[in-house]
Amino acid sequence: MTKSHPDLSDIVATIGRDMGAHLGGGKVADYIPALARVDPRRFGMAVIGCDGQTAETGDAWMPFSIQSISKVFTLTMALERLGDDLWKRVGREPSGSRFNSIVQLEHEQGIPRNPFINAGAIVVTDALLAGRPPAEGVAEIRDFMRRRADTETLDVDPEVVSSEAATGFRNQSLASFMRGFGNLHSPVDEVLEVYFNQCAVRITCRQLARAGLFLANAGKDPINGDVVTTSKRARRIAAVMMTCGHYDASGEFAFHVGLPGKSGVGGGILAIVPGKAAVAVWSPGLDEAGTSYVGAMALKRLAAATRWSVF
Amino acid sequence: MTKSHPDLSDIVATIGRDMGAHLGGGKVADYIPALARVDPRRFGMAVIGCDGQTAETGDAWMPFSIQSISKVFTLTMALERLGDDLWKRVGREPSGSRFNSIVQLEHEQGIPRNPFINAGAIVVTDALLAGRPPAEGVAEIRDFMRRRADTETLDVDPEVVSSEAATGFRNQSLASFMRGFGNLHSPVDEVLEVYFNQCAVRITCRQLARAGLFLANAGKDPINGDVVTTSKRARRIAAVMMTCGHYDASGEFAFHVGLPGKSGVGGGILAIVPGKAAVAVWSPGLDEAGTSYVGAMALKRLAAATRWSVF
Amino acid sequence: MTKSHPDLSDIVATIGRDMGAHLGGGKVADYIPALARVDPRRFGMAVIGCDGQTAETGDAWMPFSIQSISKVFTLTMALERLGDDLWKRVGREPSGSRFNSIVQLEHEQGIPRNPFINAGAIVVTDALLAGRPPAEGVAEIRDFMRRRADTETLDVDPEVVSSEAATGFRNQSLASFMRGFGNLHSPVDEVLEVYFNQCAVRITCRQLARAGLFLANAGKDPINGDVVTTSKRARRIAAVMMTCGHYDASGEFAFHVGLPGKSGVGGGILAIVPGKAAVAVWSPGLDEAGTSYVGAMALKRLAAATRWSVF
Amino acid sequence: MTKSHPDLSDIVATIGRDMGAHLGGGKVADYIPALARVDPRRFGMAVIGCDGQTAETGDAWMPFSIQSISKVFTLTMALERLGDDLWKRVGREPSGSRFNSIVQLEHEQGIPRNPFINAGAIVVTDALLAGRPPAEGVAEIRDFMRRRADTETLDVDPEVVSSEAATGFRNQSLASFMRGFGNLHSPVDEVLEVYFNQCAVRITCRQLARAGLFLANAGKDPINGDVVTTSKRARRIAAVMMTCGHYDASGEFAFHVGLPGKSGVGGGILAIVPGKAAVAVWSPGLDEAGTSYVGAMALKRLAAATRWSVF
Repeated sequence: MTKSHPDLSDIVATIGRDMGAHLGGGKVADYIPALARVDPRRFGMAVIGCDGQTAETGDAWMPFSIQSISKVFTLTMALERLGDDLWKRVGREPSGSRFNSIVQLEHEQGIPRNPFINAGAIVVTDALLAGRPPAEGVAEIRDFMRRRADTETLDVDPEVVSSEAATGFRNQSLASFMRGFGNLHSPVDEVLEVYFNQCAVRITCRQLARAGLFLANAGKDPINGDVVTTSKRARRIAAVMMTCGHYDASGEFAFHVGLPGKSGVGGGILAIVPGKAAVAVWSPGLDEAGTSYVGAMALKRLAAATRWSVF
Repeated sequence: MTKSHPDLSDIVATIGRDMGAHLGGGKVADYIPALARVDPRRFGMAVIGCDGQTAETGDAWMPFSIQSISKVFTLTMALERLGDDLWKRVGREPSGSRFNSIVQLEHEQGIPRNPFINAGAIVVTDALLAGRPPAEGVAEIRDFMRRRADTETLDVDPEVVSSEAATGFRNQSLASFMRGFGNLHSPVDEVLEVYFNQCAVRITCRQLARAGLFLANAGKDPINGDVVTTSKRARRIAAVMMTCGHYDASGEFAFHVGLPGKSGVGGGILAIVPGKAAVAVWSPGLDEAGTSYVGAMALKRLAAATRWSVF
Repeated sequence: MTKSHPDLSDIVATIGRDMGAHLGGGKVADYIPALARVDPRRFGMAVIGCDGQTAETGDAWMPFSIQSISKVFTLTMALERLGDDLWKRVGREPSGSRFNSIVQLEHEQGIPRNPFINAGAIVVTDALLAGRPPAEGVAEIRDFMRRRADTETLDVDPEVVSSEAATGFRNQSLASFMRGFGNLHSPVDEVLEVYFNQCAVRITCRQLARAGLFLANAGKDPINGDVVTTSKRARRIAAVMMTCGHYDASGEFAFHVGLPGKSGVGGGILAIVPGKAAVAVWSPGLDEAGTSYVGAMALKRLAAATRWSVF
Repeated sequence: MTKSHPDLSDIVATIGRDMGAHLGGGKVADYIPALARVDPRRFGMAVIGCDGQTAETGDAWMPFSIQSISKVFTLTMALERLGDDLWKRVGREPSGSRFNSIVQLEHEQGIPRNPFINAGAIVVTDALLAGRPPAEGVAEIRDFMRRRADTETLDVDPEVVSSEAATGFRNQSLASFMRGFGNLHSPVDEVLEVYFNQCAVRITCRQLARAGLFLANAGKDPINGDVVTTSKRARRIAAVMMTCGHYDASGEFAFHVGLPGKSGVGGGILAIVPGKAAVAVWSPGLDEAGTSYVGAMALKRLAAATRWSVF
């Protein structure tokens, strides 16, 4: 990487400086206190190449709430556990709707459009749980995340979990709805317990980029050699990230950034550069679609400067 | 291209042979006679590299009706004419709906989700027409297509035009609807005259791949040196093809093929391999989403064999 | 009527006075000039009993544009011409949507929910036209209206017709959409020519109440003895007026007034008091659902004072 | 009543005989065992006049599950408790959708269209509960029903309650969804406990007609003199029954029967004849919209024979 992009560190540093003028843009998620009180002016970015080289800027080592970016990892885990049978329970088409819409579920018999809208991610978590006790599912996801991020310290924020459980009416509604169609096998409360935990993992940009690196490297972790998934499956997960990773703003992200990505309401974004690198950015202010405002801007700059767009 | 893929001709030839077992699959479009009477067992494929090398199989030199693939070319033309102002009149998000759905238009004030669903393409054609007489618009599009395909023989099938005009009630409905919202400037009949003509262009796989090559080469035609559009715009058009090129099956195409593409109800598909090549396939039988059944299968094989997926 | 309601003239006169404080309320339709320039402070009301007695107040003799109230009369005519076969082409359920929504049509294969939303009324007009030249349909409707209103002077406002034709993109869209589903037999332009003419009839409250009287009298005109329709059919038309007569505000009208009614964007409302009377009110200002604001208020007062609610 | 309808007993007896040929028509609700095992060939009808006279046929004294007909009584109770403020939390428009649709809720911010679809009835129950313990709400509803039906024996079927609780995922989804919008004040489980209990009341046709009589008599129970609600409110409840009492088949019921009514999935229907009588029918087989097939047929006959249609 360093040879073809000798200036990557410079590019990242420049982006870090340029973002200074935009800090505080967007609107911090405020539906739970633990998210609402995050400093809106934070910004971090970390890039890790398939060759292990890294570049960082800003708050790249400050933990934030992973939220929906966790869906990429549970999808990988569920596909490894169930294989392509998972696709009988969730589609892989853009929904054209907001992250928590229930309309399409009613028209399509409880089968969510894709694994990255909330309904789809809840099904994926249910599939991964496979009837086991919630604590077992939570531990498995946490351990997988730790292994991928190459850290033992990564953990769940219990305050976020309990806040989500107390206010997550829409997710309860989605889960009950799908259970009514037989597309949720464990009880609603148990699936949501796992789901709220996976979303409450605290992670840094540095760890997140590291955790996603296998998707840039044909399913194999280039640092420790773990074969996380097959090459074909890694490409397909990236394809779903491209078409569905940002809810009803996925087209915009593909248009402006041109990389498979997944955003979270905590302000993080994971982007994959196939064959080259994984990138994580974080800044808490969100645009209307729920994607980090400054984070997306930084990725757009990065893609332009590196010519990493896949198109 | 030939060096990194010394066996491309072999790969294409093998795909041609393998498709023999699937010919006749899918369902030929039958809403107008000119399409309905096409032999369902036809199959052609043509690949043209940015270096000018080619590989072909089957009916690669037999003309077919370009239909919705024309939307890629009119989008390019309209962007060159209007610049990014075009995006005020049409979005770039997957619609999650069928190619001719009107539901979203009602909910979103007559602004179509993207330029590749019918409503969006009609707006693009109206923008390109810019109030001029329809004949002028038709000639401009035909001449652009001829230049891109490097042939003077490419022409419109008048029977298809008149059939479309006689049966195109849904397109008339979409156009009238948008005109009611002020998002169509020319009269409905004039815009549709141009639209029906652009869809009725007869083209071969060989010509179609040639015509799309600028999108694989950063906006510049690598054969004759024409700068068709900017590098940035070419990438963005490819991004919209990836997320929206196949209506409510765009996710499937990205998942299985991993290339920006655009399908037409005539059975053709244009796929772009950024930096490498353009590919055209044709086989008249369609799947439920209106994409060539054998054509998509051939592209899936090609992407697997060449590792050309962008992911 | 006078015996059971000796004070009807007093009630109507009082309502006329009381409405004085509300004149100018609501918003006059302004999508065509001929409607927009009507004085917003006009108000008229006319009641005609099945015994022929009348009571009036305000501008009861001033003509206004009948608009959608014409749908009641074309429905009657079409039912007489086609019988219950008409119901294969249009439903009789409230739509839950605005008067010009197209969403439900897409979900239900081009069959409109009821004959009083625009799509349904266009189908009814097409059924009534039955392939004949538009002028014949226009003349038939006008003659029927004249006979019902007991006047030779009632006529179409040509300015309104031409304005509607020039701006009626939504109705063109609805008609084209249904023609695409085979639920419109005459060409779109011909059906809309008749439809725009029927909506442009100029009528007074006095004439309108007279014209609707057969619906209050079991299908028979109590004044001249004409059997306009059967008793059963008259009751059923009234039932559809109750559940569907005011688009997505039909429930409100039933709740507050308790009578079958039909409103028009010209500010008129026809209400039926089964077995007793027909009532017409007119005041140009409309509420959000497109019903006359002062007119509905007057009907609410009338129903309260006379205890004419059917409930 | 007997004077104006000396033959009411004959009419009812004839209907009872005629229905014999249709018994077993429709499809018995089978989503819970307690409903599924009801004999599909049962049919009962009871009419009670405002003068206290009665006419019955068939299984008029056999108890069945009241199900959604309970919504009429909880609406009355909640209106008495909260007054018109209730209408801030639930509309009174036909929804145009099935009884358990969630689509409209998403588009309209958690405010259900009317109190007779499930979502609306759940809000009404929540409003009636007003934060009290569920047992208190259940007892209040049961006591109200007993008083109205003039019987101490009327009670809840515990098997139905527990089956509903175990399978009521859709209702849980609706309730969670509305709680997410702040339109449910008590916890979802508590509201649904009351709701499932109110739907599980076992009642006979004889009792149900008796219980609904106040709605035919301007809000006052004509037998025991209880003023249940005001005259105005009774008429308005009847109006909502007319426009919304049968979900997306309310228009059909108004068209064919012409009376305010409310159906339940247990096969019962309550119909109100304003100023004259209350009618209850029961037969377990349902049509596609969830209304008793034979029951609706019997009411259609009754309305035709008695000329009781309000239109």
